[in-house]
Amino acid sequence: MPVLDPAELHDAVRDRSLAATVLLNEVMTEYPDAISFAPGAPQLKHLADANLTGYMERFLRYTCTERGITRQRAIRLLHEYGPSRGIINDLVARALHLDQGLPDRPEAVVITVGAQEGMFLTLRALHRDARDLLAVAVPCYVGVLGAARLLDIGVVPIRDTEHGPDLDDLHRASHAARAAGRRIRSLYIAPDFANPSGHWMDVNDRRALLAAAEREGMVLLEDGTYGFTAPADGSAPSLKSLDPDTRVVHLGTFAKVCLPGARVGFVVADQPLRESGCPRRLLADEIAALKGMVTVNTPPLSQAVIGGMLIEAGGSLATLGAARADVYRRNLASLLDCLDRRIGSHHDLAVCITWNRPKGGFFVRMRLPIPVDTALLEESAAKHGVLWMPMASFWTGSEGDHELRLSCSYLDPGQIDEGIRRLAGFLRSVIGRRTGGAGSRTDRRGGTPRETPH
Amino acid sequence: MPVLDPAELHDAVRDRSLAATVLLNEVMTEYPDAISFAPGAPQLKHLADANLTGYMERFLRYTCTERGITRQRAIRLLHEYGPSRGIINDLVARALHLDQGLPDRPEAVVITVGAQEGMFLTLRALHRDARDLLAVAVPCYVGVLGAARLLDIGVVPIRDTEHGPDLDDLHRASHAARAAGRRIRSLYIAPDFANPSGHWMDVNDRRALLAAAEREGMVLLEDGTYGFTAPADGSAPSLKSLDPDTRVVHLGTFAKVCLPGARVGFVVADQPLRESGCPRRLLADEIAALKGMVTVNTPPLSQAVIGGMLIEAGGSLATLGAARADVYRRNLASLLDCLDRRIGSHHDLAVCITWNRPKGGFFVRMRLPIPVDTALLEESAAKHGVLWMPMASFWTGSEGDHELRLSCSYLDPGQIDEGIRRLAGFLRSVIGRRTGGAGSRTDRRGGTPRETPH
Repeated sequence: MPVLDPAELHDAVRDRSLAATVLLNEVMTEYPDAISFAPGAPQLKHLADANLTGYMERFLRYTCTERGITRQRAIRLLHEYGPSRGIINDLVARALHLDQGLPDRPEAVVITVGAQEGMFLTLRALHRDARDLLAVAVPCYVGVLGAARLLDIGVVPIRDTEHGPDLDDLHRASHAARAAGRRIRSLYIAPDFANPSGHWMDVNDRRALLAAAEREGMVLLEDGTYGFTAPADGSAPSLKSLDPDTRVVHLGTFAKVCLPGARVGFVVADQPLRESGCPRRLLADEIAALKGMVTVNTPPLSQAVIGGMLIEAGGSLATLGAARADVYRRNLASLLDCLDRRIGSHHDLAVCITWNRPKGGFFVRMRLPIPVDTALLEESAAKHGVLWMPMASFWTGSEGDHELRLSCSYLDPGQIDEGIRRLAGFLRSVIGRRTGGAGSRTDRRGGTPRETPH
Repeated sequence: MPVLDPAELHDAVRDRSLAATVLLNEVMTEYPDAISFAPGAPQLKHLADANLTGYMERFLRYTCTERGITRQRAIRLLHEYGPSRGIINDLVARALHLDQGLPDRPEAVVITVGAQEGMFLTLRALHRDARDLLAVAVPCYVGVLGAARLLDIGVVPIRDTEHGPDLDDLHRASHAARAAGRRIRSLYIAPDFANPSGHWMDVNDRRALLAAAEREGMVLLEDGTYGFTAPADGSAPSLKSLDPDTRVVHLGTFAKVCLPGARVGFVVADQPLRESGCPRRLLADEIAALKGMVTVNTPPLSQAVIGGMLIEAGGSLATLGAARADVYRRNLASLLDCLDRRIGSHHDLAVCITWNRPKGGFFVRMRLPIPVDTALLEESAAKHGVLWMPMASFWTGSEGDHELRLSCSYLDPGQIDEGIRRLAGFLRSVIGRRTGGAGSRTDRRGGTPRETPH
C-alpha cells in the first residue's frame, strides 16, 4: 500500500469542522505572537500553582474515610482500570444534587473523557440506525456535529432564536422526518450562553422546550458547560432539574471550572429501560457499557484530581464555578466594551459590522459584510497579528460564511484591548478594500437571523 | 418519556461481550472472596509505592530541557487541552525506534485513551461504509468486536491456527466479500500470544501474513499488547517492523507495562494519503482529527505520568516490559503446572478436559465437555469460590460455548494453586454430574480446532 486514497476513508475525515480546526492550529503555530480570540479554552492562570498531588491526596483520604477502605486499596483504585462508569460518580451526583437539586443518584451518572465523550456515547446509545436523526439549533457546537458525523447520524438544522431553538421549525422538521419514515430522536441544546451563539434560555423558554420535546417524543441532550458564567440576575434552572419525566440527558464538563488537562466530564442519564432483565437498569448503564468499547474507562488518575478539587470546594461544582466565573464576566464585559469603542463608535465600521451581546459564556459572534474564509484568517494573522474563529464550521450549510467568533476566555483585558485594536485595523483594511470604500453599501448575504445590533 | 425501549437503542447495547462483562462484574462483586482467573488486568503490586508525582516531575524536567521551554510553560502543557495527537509522541516514537527499529517518526504516532481508543479510531478512519468489512481470527479480543459493533462495521470471522489466521480461509473470505460487492478492508491481529487464543506467530508466519495482506489489498491492525511477555527464545519482530510498505497500523498500550489507571495507548499510522493538500499528510493525522470528535485529547496528566515512566526507563518500552515480564512468565508456568498436577494427572478430569500451553501472554484457554454458560460461572463462584471467563463472547458465532479462559496475570502463585485446586473440585462436581459420571464419554461438540493437548 504505497498510499491510501482519502476518498476511501470514512466521511468524517472530510468534516469541515475538522478542516477549520486543523487550519486554526496551523495558523496559530505559524503566528505565535498573534493575539488569538479563537480557542474557547479556559483561563489557566489560577492553575499555575495547582497542587495536583494535593488533589489526588485529598481524594485518597476521602475515599478511605467515606468507603471504609485502606489507603493501599484506595491507591489501587488510581492504578487500576476501574469500572467503565467511573470512580467519582458519588461525588458528582452529590454535587448536582447540592447545586441543581437533581436526585442524588450516582447510578445515573457516567464519568467520561470530557463532555465530548459523553455526547458521543449518548448519541450512539440513543440513535438506533440511520432513521434516527439528531436536531441541532444552528449555529451549533462543532463537537456535536463531529460526533454525529463520525457515527453517520443525520443532522437536522433548526433555526435558532434568542429564546433557543425555534419550536415551530422543530415541529415542522419533526413532522417532515416522520413523513419520510424517520424520526428526530434527540435534540442537542446548550441553554446557557451556547457556543457559539451566546443564546440563553429563560425558565419559560426551557419549559416550552421540554413540552415540545414531550410532544415530539424526542430526548433532549442538555450541555451545561457555560451555565457557571451566568450573571446573578441571569441564571435559570437546568433543563434536567425541570425534568421529572426523564426527558433530558444532562452533559457536563470539569474542563472549564477545574482543569482541561484532566479531561473529565459526565453524563446524567436516569432514563429507565423497559423490560430490562434487571428492573433498575438505566440508560446510564448502557452508556457505561458502550464506553467499554471506546475508551474502557476514564483515567482514574484524572478522576482523582477532579474528585479532590470537588471535595476541596465543599462538594459543590457551583462553588468551583463561582470562583472562576468572575474572570470570564470581566473579560466578556471588556471585550464588548472594546468592540464598542474601537468598532461601534467608528462610523466606517459600525455601518456594516454587527455583533451580539451575550450576558454570559465565552463568545461573541460577529457578522461582516464580506465572506469570512480561511484566506481572510490568514491575512488577519499575517498582517494584523490577530486571530479568530471562522463560523462556517458551526453550521450545517453555508449560512455562516459571513461570520466569525471571538472568544474572550483565554486572554486578559490588556490583550483583549490590543487584540480588538488590531481587529479594527484589519477590518478597516479589508472592508474598505473589498467593498470599494469603508462605509459604502455592503454585501449582506447569508441566511442567519439578524444579530442583536451593538 | 416514562421508560426507554431497549429495542429502540443502538444494537451495540445488545452486544454479547458486554453482557458477559457486566455479568462478570456482578459475580465478582457478589463473591469478593472467590479467586478470580477472569480479568486480564496486570499485576499492580510493583505499583504500590509508584511515585506518580515523581513521574510527572520527571516529564516536566525532560520537557523543559528537551523542548527548551520554561517550567511554567511545561506545567501548562499538563493543565491545558493540548493537541489531539498527544504530547508524548516523540518519546513513544523514539521508544519504538529503539525497541523495534521503527523509523523515529513522532508525526506517525497518535496517543490514545488506551489501545481501545486507538483501535476504535483506526477502524473508523479506515472503514468508509458498510461495504468495508473487518476480518478477525476467532476467538478474538472482545474490544475489537465491540468497537466494530459500535461502528456498525461487519465482522468476518477467520479460522485461527497456531500460526495465526488461516490464510486460505482469509483468501476465501476476501474473494467472497468482493463477489458480494464488498471488501475486507482490514484484519485485526495480535501476533504475540493473542487474547484469548494464546497464539504466537513466528517471523515466517508474519511474513506470510504480510504477503497475504498485500495480495488481498487489506490493512493489518497489529495489536502488540502481549509482546513483552515473550520468552527469550520466542520473540519475533513486530509486523510493523517487517512492513516497509506501510501495510500495518500498529496499536500499543502502556496499561500492562506501566499503569492501567493512566489509560494511555498509542497508534502508529504512517500510511501516506494520496493527493492530500499537504504532501506529508498521514493516516495518523486523520486518526488524530477523528479523536477530536470522540475524546478531544488524551489527558495530558496521564500522558505525563507515562512519559515520566518511559524517561526513567531510559526511553525504552522494552526495558519497562522486561522488568514486568518475569512475573507473568512465572505465573503462566505456575498456572500450567497447577493444571497438570490438579487436573492433568487425574484421569477422571484429564480424559475430557483440554487446554492449550502458550509460551507467553496472560491466558490459558480450556475446553470442557459441557456447555460453559453463565449458570456454570455462577455455580463455580457460589459453591467453589473460583471465577473464570466464559469464552463465548470472544466468538462471533456459538463455537466457543464449551470453553473458558483462565488469566494468570493478576494473581500470585499461591492464589493460582489454591484457585486451580478449587477449579478442579468444581469441574469434578459438574462434569461428573452432567455426563453421568466423570470419565464417561463426553460431549465434544463445538467448532474450534482441537487445542494443543496438555
